[in-house]
Amino acid sequence: MKEPETGEAPATAAVLVIGDEILSGRTQDTNTRYIATYLAQIGVDLREARVVPDVEEEIVAAVNALRARYTYLFTTGGIGPTHDDITADSVGRAFGVEVIEDPRAMAMLRERFAEEELNPARRRMARIPRGAELVCNAISKAPGFWIGNVIVMAGVPVIMQSMMDTVGPQLRSGARVEVETVEAGSIPEGSYAMRLEEIAAAHPGVSVGSYPNFSGQGVRNQIVLRSRDVASLASAKAAVRALLAELAGA
Amino acid sequence: MKEPETGEAPATAAVLVIGDEILSGRTQDTNTRYIATYLAQIGVDLREARVVPDVEEEIVAAVNALRARYTYLFTTGGIGPTHDDITADSVGRAFGVEVIEDPRAMAMLRERFAEEELNPARRRMARIPRGAELVCNAISKAPGFWIGNVIVMAGVPVIMQSMMDTVGPQLRSGARVEVETVEAGSIPEGSYAMRLEEIAAAHPGVSVGSYPNFSGQGVRNQIVLRSRDVASLASAKAAVRALLAELAGA
Repeated sequence: MKEPETGEAPATAAVLVIGDEILSGRTQDTNTRYIATYLAQIGVDLREARVVPDVEEEIVAAVNALRARYTYLFTTGGIGPTHDDITADSVGRAFGVEVIEDPRAMAMLRERFAEEELNPARRRMARIPRGAELVCNAISKAPGFWIGNVIVMAGVPVIMQSMMDTVGPQLRSGARVEVETVEAGSIPEGSYAMRLEEIAAAHPGVSVGSYPNFSGQGVRNQIVLRSRDVASLASAKAAVRALLAELAGA
Repeated sequence: MKEPETGEAPATAAVLVIGDEILSGRTQDTNTRYIATYLAQIGVDLREARVVPDVEEEIVAAVNALRARYTYLFTTGGIGPTHDDITADSVGRAFGVEVIEDPRAMAMLRERFAEEELNPARRRMARIPRGAELVCNAISKAPGFWIGNVIVMAGVPVIMQSMMDTVGPQLRSGARVEVETVEAGSIPEGSYAMRLEEIAAAHPGVSVGSYPNFSGQGVRNQIVLRSRDVASLASAKAAVRALLAELAGA
């Protein structure tokens, strides 16, 4: 998709989901879609997502690959109190910085826990790479953090969402990608595909996708148009509607 | 997790989801979890998942990175008739082989389409890298394919599932990872984390995870134990139950 020629290139992002429970099939990841939707609304382009297991080398390698390529990297998972929560240590290693018990994070934990409850496991949640900013959350108090261009968040969806609310306003936002969906109904993809490609070629600033949906009523297709250029988007939408009207009448 | 010392190492796998519609947040990916669950049942370890956009260079790079690392790579999406369906060409390029209109694939399409319906867009669905085996599906007829260790499937979940049924019996299966879930209820993670780590350390063949779940009733925790070694799994489970009983009684 060609970008409009005004201003700075849009910020880009990747999501890294850390967790054996996703790869085992036990849990359906919904964080990626939530972050994708959130970023789309503020004009940040999500370009890639990965899921890796709770293995330090895998996390370090993915963090370093993704933070080098995109404006932001958002991670979810692995910041709780148990031994399988190794995200802070892994991100520290990726950046080559020490991971310390952060006094600011300890202060947050003290809002929730009495001193005698702050055993080594819970104190683990205050382990933060040196130099990181904390990302507070209203729900569990245990913070995420932001180091370089990497934003480390919880895996529990409601806590991750609370953290997104904290970091969202600090992200470099841009012109939002506007979306138009045109229902093609039961008109088969194969009968509009060639002319849809022509419409896409004539509107280089618009991303044009066709998505079949197999429901109980048979296949229903949708054509989805996405662009930061509102005029070009409207022109492409009109062309798609005219094409479908012609095919429906044929 | 230490593997049991009998026989061959388990087969490994990655999933590559190809599709702008996932990264835009428009569509919730469910294919990864389906494949994860399917593979777990036949003893293949899913080690990584990625989502990339409908961009050839991105697909080629991900295919080559993942097929080099794992026993199998499963891709979903991008094999329909529209211009944004570029998976076959991308995989062909990743393998350095020509992509041809495959006569076997054309024969499958002829089961569904009359000759006059087989326009260039629909014939696109018969474009297959030379040397690949076809993966038939009962629903749409348009095949996926299998080349080297890469299995290319549709993005529409019911079609992908039909393709998994075709390829599943041909995969190198192994001893299944058995799973035990122990409900910790409202006992806080922070109060069992240290002793859970001791249990994990005492059972090196067992993967031990703790997962909080924030529902309307507050936090409920689950401890999930996974192993191919049934005796070790049972021992770890007994230890976890004893620990939780002690804490509940405390």
